[in-house]
Amino acid sequence: MRIEIICTGDEVLTGKIVNTNFSYMSQKLEDVGLAVQWETTVGDNRDELLRAFQLAGQRADAVIVNGGLGPTVDDLSQEVAARAAGVELALHEGWLARMEEMFRRRSRLMPLNNHKQAMLPASAEMIDNPIGTACGFALDIGKARFFFTPGVPRELHRMLEEQILPRLLARSGQQTAIYLKRFHSYGLGESHVDALLKGVEDIVPDGSVKLGFRAHYPQLETKLTVRGADMNDIQTKLAPVVEEVRKRVGNFIFAEDEKTLEGVVLSELTAQPASLAVVETFTGGQIAARLAPLPGAETIFRRGTVARSVGEICAAVGLADSVPSGEITPEMAEAVATAARQQTGATHALAVLVAVDDGADRIDFGGTICLGIATGREVVSRRSRIVGGREWVRLGAVEMGLDCLRRYLQGLPLHERIDFEKTDDKA
Amino acid sequence: MRIEIICTGDEVLTGKIVNTNFSYMSQKLEDVGLAVQWETTVGDNRDELLRAFQLAGQRADAVIVNGGLGPTVDDLSQEVAARAAGVELALHEGWLARMEEMFRRRSRLMPLNNHKQAMLPASAEMIDNPIGTACGFALDIGKARFFFTPGVPRELHRMLEEQILPRLLARSGQQTAIYLKRFHSYGLGESHVDALLKGVEDIVPDGSVKLGFRAHYPQLETKLTVRGADMNDIQTKLAPVVEEVRKRVGNFIFAEDEKTLEGVVLSELTAQPASLAVVETFTGGQIAARLAPLPGAETIFRRGTVARSVGEICAAVGLADSVPSGEITPEMAEAVATAARQQTGATHALAVLVAVDDGADRIDFGGTICLGIATGREVVSRRSRIVGGREWVRLGAVEMGLDCLRRYLQGLPLHERIDFEKTDDKA
Repeated sequence: MRIEIICTGDEVLTGKIVNTNFSYMSQKLEDVGLAVQWETTVGDNRDELLRAFQLAGQRADAVIVNGGLGPTVDDLSQEVAARAAGVELALHEGWLARMEEMFRRRSRLMPLNNHKQAMLPASAEMIDNPIGTACGFALDIGKARFFFTPGVPRELHRMLEEQILPRLLARSGQQTAIYLKRFHSYGLGESHVDALLKGVEDIVPDGSVKLGFRAHYPQLETKLTVRGADMNDIQTKLAPVVEEVRKRVGNFIFAEDEKTLEGVVLSELTAQPASLAVVETFTGGQIAARLAPLPGAETIFRRGTVARSVGEICAAVGLADSVPSGEITPEMAEAVATAARQQTGATHALAVLVAVDDGADRIDFGGTICLGIATGREVVSRRSRIVGGREWVRLGAVEMGLDCLRRYLQGLPLHERIDFEKTDDKA
Repeated sequence: MRIEIICTGDEVLTGKIVNTNFSYMSQKLEDVGLAVQWETTVGDNRDELLRAFQLAGQRADAVIVNGGLGPTVDDLSQEVAARAAGVELALHEGWLARMEEMFRRRSRLMPLNNHKQAMLPASAEMIDNPIGTACGFALDIGKARFFFTPGVPRELHRMLEEQILPRLLARSGQQTAIYLKRFHSYGLGESHVDALLKGVEDIVPDGSVKLGFRAHYPQLETKLTVRGADMNDIQTKLAPVVEEVRKRVGNFIFAEDEKTLEGVVLSELTAQPASLAVVETFTGGQIAARLAPLPGAETIFRRGTVARSVGEICAAVGLADSVPSGEITPEMAEAVATAARQQTGATHALAVLVAVDDGADRIDFGGTICLGIATGREVVSRRSRIVGGREWVRLGAVEMGLDCLRRYLQGLPLHERIDFEKTDDKA
């Protein structure tokens, strides 16, 4: 089945907004085993829209159109869709009533121009939008079935997942269920994990498990797409593959599915129960910013301290007399973490000290990271060096700090060599 | 002149990476007064690429193609361009020599597959890439001039700005120079600033000044695109418009052109010279994270303190005995800022306290912000309430903290009503 996507709107065409709706839709389709072959972006322009609809209608079996369903004069999707399909616009009484009800519930009168949003091509099937005034619709143009969706991301997401994907899967003739299993890891690059997982798809011999990746430094997402007759069948197929992925990628997996690294750290601290103090330098507050604002962190996240100089860090945690000169060391990180824990009364303290190279930013700009974790029982540390530019070092140091804390809380080794570390440095 | 853009590559088509190259190119063209009419994305597929090139060649006068110039087998742009233009591929000796020289300078032997990057369509004009192995090229397909560019963003940026834009402007028949002037503001929405600036374009009666906006909450960018015979002509036209924009938007403009809010704050502190301590709650380290990592902040950014509870904040700055109960107040923010300054010895301290609403995140989720700024001379404060969801409140509080500090350092009033504030609250 050939699928195309058409994105509409001057704001997307002029680059005023980055087209995340497209990448979202394409990824969602990939996740259920469908593939987009062609994408077109046009502005709020009748002639261009008509041409885009006609071309896609000649080429594709199914087309998703995004945007242009709003109440204003530059929202043209219904009008041009009707013209391309050779039908008139007609009032959809059901949707008009739904909109009036939405406004009534907010004690507001529906503005006259919203009326336009209930005018659909006469041959169209209305598609529900439970959270907005722009309903979607489907109709045939040329040899393709067109699905029109709203531009507001949360409305699009819900309509795509609940309404469009089932219709596309039905049309594709896939009578099967599909499931996406995700693993999030830190420390290994995509090609490394790809090599580690060689052959895991073959554990299920019928080809119904497909492996994929999405890298966003410093994290990597590993995806398993699984097809089956139903969810029971899927779970049976998936179980041995999941076990194998967990075994091979091991401690580098910090979370699965919807979970995040900072969420896992917070859960581990909450379960103990424990509290946390964080001390950081070049990361400038980014470690604290990942944890402190989370719901549930109010009582767990005790205190964060940021300074650019190690002397100031030592002063802040009450180590004023031992201000060191020269380079940072793991011992210094241990001392800072210990002092921060004592100072704040937190059960745990994480100190992440970074010494960055001198000079201008460049691709071989690097930084040395010394991190320490202190509890009432012990204090541990890790030293590392990351190279790849200022921002690369900062992002890497934030993630390494959080991931080492996760490893510590889960009783896993802090020292496992990661792909982002430079080898010619003592580790 | 009709311009189209074709983006290529499976990673973009499948949504694995968000297509920021397209929004970058389209904005850059807008900035020099050119407009993109149509965008197409296709994968690494010979048939689809050929079809995309042929269709665009029928419709457009100029086409920019992005990606597919790499050394691997799925980089197909040269091959398909040659086929679409009806010519052979031929070795470009000059580019081959350049690549070999690049590898020699890094003391590496050029891998054999890089040879492919010097194979250009016989009719193509080579376009230099001073920072990578993928040269660009231009040739005619159908009635359009095609410009092929590399997918690596920094290589694309440089080639577009230095090589493609001048060629496009020459083809468009615009014998004029063009200049983009930018103002960055915080606190006023796009429609508000649009209303404030009504008529400024008409200060230059020949229509050579165009006003535009780019909103990315909580900041707004106001853009003036100016055409002229040369840069002298542009500066003459621009001067009275710039003066008028500065007058009308006034204190809300925190920076112009390449400057940033955090950069301006750092410059003001450096000029005094001064040093800074920051205390924050719900913003969780994000205020510190904007300032602390900047080059030059090593000696200026003295210390950042983060905690979720006001009691812990008070303890951290040495106000342990006066831990308050109940809601936060401007007086409390003043006391915290004063204590932080004394504790750290910094010349200035900024305290941003935020009390967020209870319950789940929703569109009317709000937060009360009390911020204080202390120096050796005085202490000032501001209270505000922002509504619009957890993340909206957090982003707004970060920006308000930095902007009030900027206002204070520049001797401007802290209290100017902003559009993001809720009115039914004491301010």
